[in-house]
Amino acid sequence: MQYREAGVDIDRANSVVRGIAGLAKPTWGPAVLSEIGSFGGLFDARALGPDAVLVASMDGVGTKLAVARLAGRWEGVGEDLVNHSVNDILVQGGRPLFFLDYVGAGQLERDAVLGMVRGMARACAAHGCALLGGETAEMPGTYAKGDYDLVGCIVGVARRDQLLTGDRVEAGDEVWGLPSTGLHTNGYSLARRALLDGGDLDPAAVHPALGVSVLDALLAVHRPYLEPLWPLVQDRRIHALAHITGGGFVDNIPRVLPAGTAVEIDRRAWTVPPIFHLIQERSGADDAEMARVFNLGIGMIVLLAPGDAPALAARCPDAKRLGQVVRGDRTVRLHP
Amino acid sequence: MQYREAGVDIDRANSVVRGIAGLAKPTWGPAVLSEIGSFGGLFDARALGPDAVLVASMDGVGTKLAVARLAGRWEGVGEDLVNHSVNDILVQGGRPLFFLDYVGAGQLERDAVLGMVRGMARACAAHGCALLGGETAEMPGTYAKGDYDLVGCIVGVARRDQLLTGDRVEAGDEVWGLPSTGLHTNGYSLARRALLDGGDLDPAAVHPALGVSVLDALLAVHRPYLEPLWPLVQDRRIHALAHITGGGFVDNIPRVLPAGTAVEIDRRAWTVPPIFHLIQERSGADDAEMARVFNLGIGMIVLLAPGDAPALAARCPDAKRLGQVVRGDRTVRLHP
Repeated sequence: MQYREAGVDIDRANSVVRGIAGLAKPTWGPAVLSEIGSFGGLFDARALGPDAVLVASMDGVGTKLAVARLAGRWEGVGEDLVNHSVNDILVQGGRPLFFLDYVGAGQLERDAVLGMVRGMARACAAHGCALLGGETAEMPGTYAKGDYDLVGCIVGVARRDQLLTGDRVEAGDEVWGLPSTGLHTNGYSLARRALLDGGDLDPAAVHPALGVSVLDALLAVHRPYLEPLWPLVQDRRIHALAHITGGGFVDNIPRVLPAGTAVEIDRRAWTVPPIFHLIQERSGADDAEMARVFNLGIGMIVLLAPGDAPALAARCPDAKRLGQVVRGDRTVRLHP
Repeated sequence: MQYREAGVDIDRANSVVRGIAGLAKPTWGPAVLSEIGSFGGLFDARALGPDAVLVASMDGVGTKLAVARLAGRWEGVGEDLVNHSVNDILVQGGRPLFFLDYVGAGQLERDAVLGMVRGMARACAAHGCALLGGETAEMPGTYAKGDYDLVGCIVGVARRDQLLTGDRVEAGDEVWGLPSTGLHTNGYSLARRALLDGGDLDPAAVHPALGVSVLDALLAVHRPYLEPLWPLVQDRRIHALAHITGGGFVDNIPRVLPAGTAVEIDRRAWTVPPIFHLIQERSGADDAEMARVFNLGIGMIVLLAPGDAPALAARCPDAKRLGQVVRGDRTVRLHP
């Protein structure tokens, strides 16, 4: 018995790894000291600057991968993972330095893996982030052929005096929302069941309620908010940011609220995109469930002093004022 | 339809996350500035010291998880992942700062997840490494109930003048090996097929050739080499280290060989542990295949000048001299 017969092909895996190296290397700036093939990535810490705090986050793209597989489109989920991660450290006041990825699969198919990596490399390059390293693992038995998990770890840097901890949030602050492009990377288990499992919708056909196909709506790439928000973070004009991921407003906004504050949000302040209505219609999920699982069209929440709102609106023309910070017990109240 | 019916239970997942927080927090030293619940982990870069290079690596434990599941023992694979990662940055000259983990599953079972995290926290604490953050993901459909993937990202630090790049390796250096505890985290797809899939071996019974059960042999925890080797790395007494993972000697040692050198290894210099003989016997894999898939009892290779060998032997009484560096074309020659 060769290892190949046990479902693991080292030669094929090595060929994929060489392809990855070619995609990752163009993202390396002068701070990257390693060569692909070494055991770990090297990043020059002198690039951090004084009073630096490292900000790190680990995440996956979840079952959006199953939609990518259905469509045979892999680059988007690579971008999704990086953009999601960039947002996760942005809300702490960090900008990205480097990113590492892990692709687990029943069998590493060259097109799928290199597609994901191409997407990650593109999103990394767009954010000045080095795709520093990664791992691919063939685990036949754990994953079926064609099934993947895609995991990323981002490490960024914040200046200590620019950290966003929520401690500057106070009653009277305004609550603004930045539109999402769709589900971003959350709620796909429910969305897939509602839209894809019935067999009565052609996922590739333009859906009248959406104006695009179900696949296009579901695979819209996670929006990164670094570029518009970074100057405001640097100028300390933002009191807190909340990335609206799994748990929606209800679970994510309280994470940045100091004791004694709460948030009131007017549901009529923005239009929930049609993809969410379609999911609700076909799943029968109630409003509370929808609000806890999905971002409902708002991917990033910004809390700031009223005087700084014009600066936000100038940088983010599509930002919407959703409500305000009030006195309270770290909850989110949705009206009506 | 509630999200729960789609296979994802946010409340149960949140309860697991709270358990994780309680295990991770004791690993946090004064450099950790974040609180669990924030979106990303914060690590004070002033702790790095001057001329610091960050060393990062991402990895999984592979299908050793399937053996852990069979045995219902989860802590060991958590330790495996951390120890593997610690070794991966040690070979670059780095010591660990912080670690992030990802647990993917069809369903997050509290005992399994907290077991893995308990193991990771223990191994992190043993290495002065902060378990800084992580992510758990329920992906019913991708993973069957009971199936897991466990992925970790380690970030460490090296002093620039202590980086191990292999450039100091030269003909005449000695090649030493440090024993592994078993398979460490590689070759489990083949090992499982050889030992567990036949149904003719009771994996929990003491096997006469092993002196322990097959499960005990397969689940032996990946040995970390930081503690014995670190003083020698700091004193620049080591020219290169190679962590023997997937690919065995043949693929891993050349990664640290400069052009014009090769390595000769005497196969009789150490005794291959019985677990590998049993796997070979039952799988029919040939010697070349075995050498490429498994560490065969040697988990870490040390290349150093003959004059420094006594210092290594003093710190690692079980180290064995395996051969020498010669002139050549970056290959590993196994004799006889």
